[in-house]
Parts: sequence; structure tokens; C-alpha cells
Amino acid sequence: MPRDLLVDVELRRGRLRRTLQEVLRCAIQDGRLGSGTTLPSSRTLAGDLGVSRGVVTDVYDQLQAEGYVELRARRAPVVIAVARATASASDPPAPIWRYDFVATTPDVDLFPRRAWIRFLERSLRTAPPAVFDYGDHRGRIELRRAIRDYLARVRGVRTEPERIVITQGFTQALDLLCRVLIDRGAKTIAFETPSLPDAWATARMSGLNVVGCPVDRNGLDVDQLRSLNPDAVVTTPAHQFPTGAVMTPDRRRHLIAWAESAGHVIVEDDYDAEFRYDRLGVGAVQGLDPDHVIHVGTASKTLAPAIRLAWMSLPGHLIDDIRKAKGTADSGSPALDQLVLADLVASGEYDRHIGLARRTYRQRRDRLVTSLAEALPEVRVFGADAGLHVVLDLPDDFDDVALANEAARHGIAIRALSPMTLGGIRRQGLLLGYGKLAVERVRDAVFALAAILKPRLR
Amino acid sequence: MPRDLLVDVELRRGRLRRTLQEVLRCAIQDGRLGSGTTLPSSRTLAGDLGVSRGVVTDVYDQLQAEGYVELRARRAPVVIAVARATASASDPPAPIWRYDFVATTPDVDLFPRRAWIRFLERSLRTAPPAVFDYGDHRGRIELRRAIRDYLARVRGVRTEPERIVITQGFTQALDLLCRVLIDRGAKTIAFETPSLPDAWATARMSGLNVVGCPVDRNGLDVDQLRSLNPDAVVTTPAHQFPTGAVMTPDRRRHLIAWAESAGHVIVEDDYDAEFRYDRLGVGAVQGLDPDHVIHVGTASKTLAPAIRLAWMSLPGHLIDDIRKAKGTADSGSPALDQLVLADLVASGEYDRHIGLARRTYRQRRDRLVTSLAEALPEVRVFGADAGLHVVLDLPDDFDDVALANEAARHGIAIRALSPMTLGGIRRQGLLLGYGKLAVERVRDAVFALAAILKPRLR
Repeated sequence: MPRDLLVDVELRRGRLRRTLQEVLRCAIQDGRLGSGTTLPSSRTLAGDLGVSRGVVTDVYDQLQAEGYVELRARRAPVVIAVARATASASDPPAPIWRYDFVATTPDVDLFPRRAWIRFLERSLRTAPPAVFDYGDHRGRIELRRAIRDYLARVRGVRTEPERIVITQGFTQALDLLCRVLIDRGAKTIAFETPSLPDAWATARMSGLNVVGCPVDRNGLDVDQLRSLNPDAVVTTPAHQFPTGAVMTPDRRRHLIAWAESAGHVIVEDDYDAEFRYDRLGVGAVQGLDPDHVIHVGTASKTLAPAIRLAWMSLPGHLIDDIRKAKGTADSGSPALDQLVLADLVASGEYDRHIGLARRTYRQRRDRLVTSLAEALPEVRVFGADAGLHVVLDLPDDFDDVALANEAARHGIAIRALSPMTLGGIRRQGLLLGYGKLAVERVRDAVFALAAILKPRLR
Repeated sequence: MPRDLLVDVELRRGRLRRTLQEVLRCAIQDGRLGSGTTLPSSRTLAGDLGVSRGVVTDVYDQLQAEGYVELRARRAPVVIAVARATASASDPPAPIWRYDFVATTPDVDLFPRRAWIRFLERSLRTAPPAVFDYGDHRGRIELRRAIRDYLARVRGVRTEPERIVITQGFTQALDLLCRVLIDRGAKTIAFETPSLPDAWATARMSGLNVVGCPVDRNGLDVDQLRSLNPDAVVTTPAHQFPTGAVMTPDRRRHLIAWAESAGHVIVEDDYDAEFRYDRLGVGAVQGLDPDHVIHVGTASKTLAPAIRLAWMSLPGHLIDDIRKAKGTADSGSPALDQLVLADLVASGEYDRHIGLARRTYRQRRDRLVTSLAEALPEVRVFGADAGLHVVLDLPDDFDDVALANEAARHGIAIRALSPMTLGGIRRQGLLLGYGKLAVERVRDAVFALAAILKPRLR
């Protein structure tokens, strides 16, 4: 037996049995003690290490129980063959961007760290032990109550704590719904085109067919939806992602009428309605018909994606199934963050934070729009009234993906519009998010992008 | 227009536009302002409220945009019909138990609240902003590193941070795996019988067939597994749930040989190996063959279920698919709790907590075993060497479910064994968990149960 193994053990004699076991097991696993190797007798090894023989026999027993050695009466223990693990590649380093125009992340520098820790401290001091146990799969009642009040007040949503299910972001809300729908015999779900491909992947994972329904300046084209007639549709009425269109009152009513007539479901992805710069946020469609619209709100844009908290407001006939699906998928979401968010919302701190964030983003938006007018006057910009990004419209014969790749080579992270097209006409464009661009860097970022874009516009 | 609505508005003039909009929208939604109601002209309402006319026209515009009123030139606005929501039943109150023998929850009173807040405070003070953004769908690298070291040291698991995926408890680990397996053409997954029905439901949700493989005092019966030949098996080798059997070295080797010969997957649910009272915890089977065993550990028993953190150590060929499934299912787990757990583990606080919990549970276990010997000497008890519960063996002609229901009527929460049988022989028994029973209440709880059980044993 190699001398260095013994030294290893001697150096860590405090927890003798455990350490000896660990060292021997490790040596067998990594092949230093190969299959068939005869280990010293317990008497010999105990003598070498200067420990009692009982320690060594305990460890040999343990290694036998785990399947690493074979013990035979009156003979030395023998190492048993262990499979070698195939090596795994380590991760490449993440790229560092000069300018990051990512359109789906807010400014996480604004995250209210102090308020968060203060409220968590309070929760941990006062929460009954049951908070740490398994709970209602819909989520903590404190958060569902706070969200109910917030949604009624700010978004015109009609719901009750009993109808709310807390999920791991919009992604999980969509996943749970798709699983329930397919169980009920649904075949097809429509998404707006353009929209985020990640969401299509989520719907497809459950086996639903995904179809695209066009969007124009008035929002989702409900006539087209009617002819597609899917079992459900995911829509962003308050602020279409990524085009920025607001659904008109007429369209809202037609959308509801479609769902009512066919018994279908509307999923209202209300991801960033809080950030509207020209007027008050347009209230949720759900308020018009809570029995046919599932409203999904999220803290991913208002606070931070890594909090992973979203909330579905459900029609009565879906509550039990979604709750069950949530339990079967993950036995419920973690409790502590829910308590903290409940306090943030109920105390008004959440509103204050959103107000601060809105002012910050508005400045960046203004700077972005004026910089674009200066650097790229020939390019049309849309979607500047709200949210965390604008869209640069590009000519149809453009290759926006190639352009985004070229920008990446220059240290600029930017997302192309055309991969967000789901069937039909491929629109060319770029999404310029300002969640990660401090106002004083916006102009430089725009000019750096323009330097790449300009030569191709001629 | 009702006078009380106006008063409402006047009382909250601070945020005038928003308040007026909210009040009117609410009144339309709940039917106080019914479909077809003519609202006062903006001039009249502004006069009544003593506000500028612009405020009222803004609000009317907003309500039109949201679909609640119709505006026509030179005519008063009219309320549009809004669907009524069906009422939802409110939740019944949770039962309060005199004695709670739940077997799946540790003592959450022991949760290290102070250490948790201390580490969170540190993380929030020092974490770079990127922590709050979307991240690697496998979870925070800090936690994956800490878990790798912990698993190697305490469980003999061979893994790397790149091979670990953090999940929302064991439930989600199983769900993700089932989704990936069925995508690869798998049809059947085996569970030990008896085992937890909740896990069967999770596997079934993805469309896998669930079969039961018997367990005896040596753990999973691998010969039976070989003849069932499922695509995967879920097993609890260190401490079978619920029987408490430890898988023998021979069985461990045969299990591995089965997986290797057929290219199948073993899911090692290593849920509470930390709580072993007669010897060191038996190391994980995964250490014998990391390319065929998926090891799943969890903080649900060591810390608290509501933390919802578990970790899968994956064979190389599953990493990419599980990572993708996790992203598509929920875009990753929340970050902050992961940072805190990483610090707890790396600092040794986690080990200290487990040591304290083990001593606490050991006392309760001892008291439980002696109380049972005193109160119910005729009943066989098994599974007392480890974990958070023991099993009372009942005669085959017993109805353990009826008995559990009877106990519930006496304020005693207890779980029957037979519903955990998955095909084959239904074993009758009761699970006596001591996670929620302080040591000084154990004896009373046992005698209260014996009072119900005794008359039926004759």
C-alpha cells in the first residue's frame, strides 16, 4: 500500500474512521488501488498507522458494505473492480461583452438587496416552523394574497388567492399549463409571431404542436387566430414581445369572443407592463374575462430573473389540475423568497422599486432613441413606448443573424429578430435592450453598433 | 354614478389618475357599473371631483384601451359588457394534529435560521450582479463545487461540478430524467415496492410505465429487476424507503452489472443516508459506477423541504439533455438559496447541523423503540437503524388504511404501508416518523396509538 496514503491518514487523525475510509475508497475509485490488490491485514495496517485494530476492521467492514473490497475469513482483504468514469469536459469561460444589448434581462444592479435582506431577516425571525415544511403546492398564501391585491390595483386583474399558483418563472407556468392541456386532449398552441423561441420549446416538450399567429401594429391578429383555431394561445397584449405593439380595444374584445365561443384558453404573458413611458400601463385582458384568460405575471423583469418567481391567475376549471401538475413536477416552489416578495409587495417597497427602475429605464430609452436618430437616421425604430428594448427594423433582404454574429465578434451582444419568426414572413431586425446599458454608455454602444451596420445599409 | 365611488376617489387623491382608473375599472368588473351604463361626460365628472378635465379624459382613454368603455365623439362614454368570473371556493383549514407521525419531514424546528441569514447577508453584500441574472441552467457553480466536495467526502460519490444539475427537490430530478428518457424511447421505469406513490405519479406524468420491483431485507431484488428489465430503476440502497433495508454488497454489484450489461440507468435516491445511528452511513452505489448511476441528494431531510434544493450527479451522456430539460421546464432554479447552501456546506456548518440533527433524532429513535417495546411488544418493528422513521409490521389480514383513518379521527397523523405497494404482495404496516415528535412526546404518542391498535391485534 503506497506510503503517501498512510501519511494522508495520519495527517487527518481527528476523525479517524471516516478519514481512513475516505482515503481508501478514493484510492480504489481512482485506480491507485487497482482491482485485485491485496490490502494489508487489519492487524498490519493498524500497526502501521498506530491506531487500534478495531478502527481498521470497522473501515474494512464499511468498504465491504459499499462494494469496494471483499473480506474472506483469515485472508487479507482484496480490492474489487470499480468502473472508471468517463472524463467530462470542463466548461468554456463565459464571453465578456463590450456592450450588451440583451433584451430579456432588466438591470440587476438595481436589485433591492437591502430591502430583501431586511424582509428575509424578519421572515426568518417570525415565521412559524411550518414555513420550512412541504406546503400548499400553489405557493405561500402570504404571497398569493399580496399578489392578488397588487394585480387588482395595478393590472386590473380579477383573481383570488385560491386561484393563484406560484411558479418558477413564466417558463414553468407555461410548462404546467401545456402538460394539463395535453392531458385534456389539446393538440395545438399558438404563439405570436414574432415571439421568443424558448417558449415554443417549452410547449413542444409536452408534445403540443406549435403554430405562429401574426402580429401587426394592433397586436395579435385575431382573425388569423380564428382560422388557425388552436386549443390555446399565448399572447402579450399590454406590450407585444418583441415588436412592442399594444393590442387595441377591438382586438381585445374579439380575442375574448374567440375564447368564449370555442371554450379555448388565452395565456396572457404580462411580463413587463409595469414599464410604460407614455401613459399608465394598459390593464390586463384577464380583467375582461377571468374564466377564459390565464394571467401570468413575473418578478423576472421588475426585480431579477434569478428570483424565479411568477404567478398564474387561473380560471376555476384549471386550478386543481395545475396545482396537481405543480406538485407532481417539483413538490412546490421554495418558501423563503416567496415570503420576502410578499412583504416587498404588501409594504409598497415593490412599487417604489418599480418607480425607480422606470425612471432609470426611461432615461436610457430616451438616450437610445436620440442616439439612434443621430447614428442611424435611415433605420426605423419601433417599440420605444414601453419595456426594456426597442426594435430596429431592417430591410427584407438583410441577414440579421449574420449581422448579430458580426456584432458579437466586435464584443457587442445583440439578438436578431428573424429567428423569432414562427412560420410566415421572416422579418429582419435587431433587438436593442437597455437593461444592461447604463445611460452614459448607451450612445457609445449605439455608435459601435452603427459602425458595423452602416456599411451594410448602402 | 354612485356617490360612494366619488368619495372613494376623493379620499385617495394622491395618485389621482391611477386611483380613478382603478375605482372605475373595479366597479365595471364587479357589476356595480353594468353593461350599457352611461358614464358622466369628462367635463361633468371633473367638476364633481374638483379635478382638471385632463385627468378624467386620460382615465377614460385608458379604460377604452383596456376594453371597459366605449368612447364616441361628442357623446358620453358607455360601459361595455364584462364577463362575470365564477366564484372559487376558499380553502378548508388545515387539520391540527395531536401527534404527527409524518415520515417524510425532518424536524424543521432545527432549521439553522441564524446561519442562513448570516450567509445570505454575506452573499447579498458580495455577490456580483450577474448572480441576479439568468444563469447556467445546471445551477450556481458555487453550489455545484461545494456539493461535489461534500459528496466525495461523505457519500463516496464520484462527480464533478460540470456533471451536477441542481433541481427543485428529488421530485424535479425524477421529472427531468423521465422526460429525457421518454424522449430517448424509454418505456418503463421500475420503483421499489414498497415506495412513495408520489414518485410513481411523477414518472407517469411523462408517459412512462411504472412497475414495482420487490424489496427484501437485503434491499432491491436484482434478480426480479433483471426479469422485469425496465429502462431505468429508482432505488434507495443506503436506506430503503420505507422498509429501512440496506442493500448488501452482492446486490450492489449485481445491480451495477445489470445496468452495464443492458445500458440501463440506475437512479440512486440518496435521501437521508446522513442519518444512520449504528455505523457510518453506507457510501453511495454511484461511486462504483458513475457512468450508469445517477446519484440524487437533497436538502429536504438534512435541512428542510421548503428549501427545495436537490442535486443530480449525472453520467456524461445525460448532462446536456438534463440541462436542456431543466432550462425548458423552468429556466433554472432560484440563485440566492443556492449561494447560501454553498456557503453552509463549504464552511462546515452543514456538517455541524447534520451532527446536531443526528443526535436529536437518535434520542427520539431510542425513545420510540423502547416505548414500542413497552406498549406494543407483540408488534415487530423494523428500519430503526437509520432515517427518520420506523415501520410497524402488521399481520396480513389487517387493514392498515382503515387504522390510519381511525388514528386521524383521534388526532394522530400516521401513514399506512400498503398504499406504497406497487403490484405484488400488499404488505400491511404503519410508518412512525419522528421528525415532528419532540423526544418528551414520543412515549405519549406511542401509547395513544397503541390504544387504537391494541384492541385490533387480538
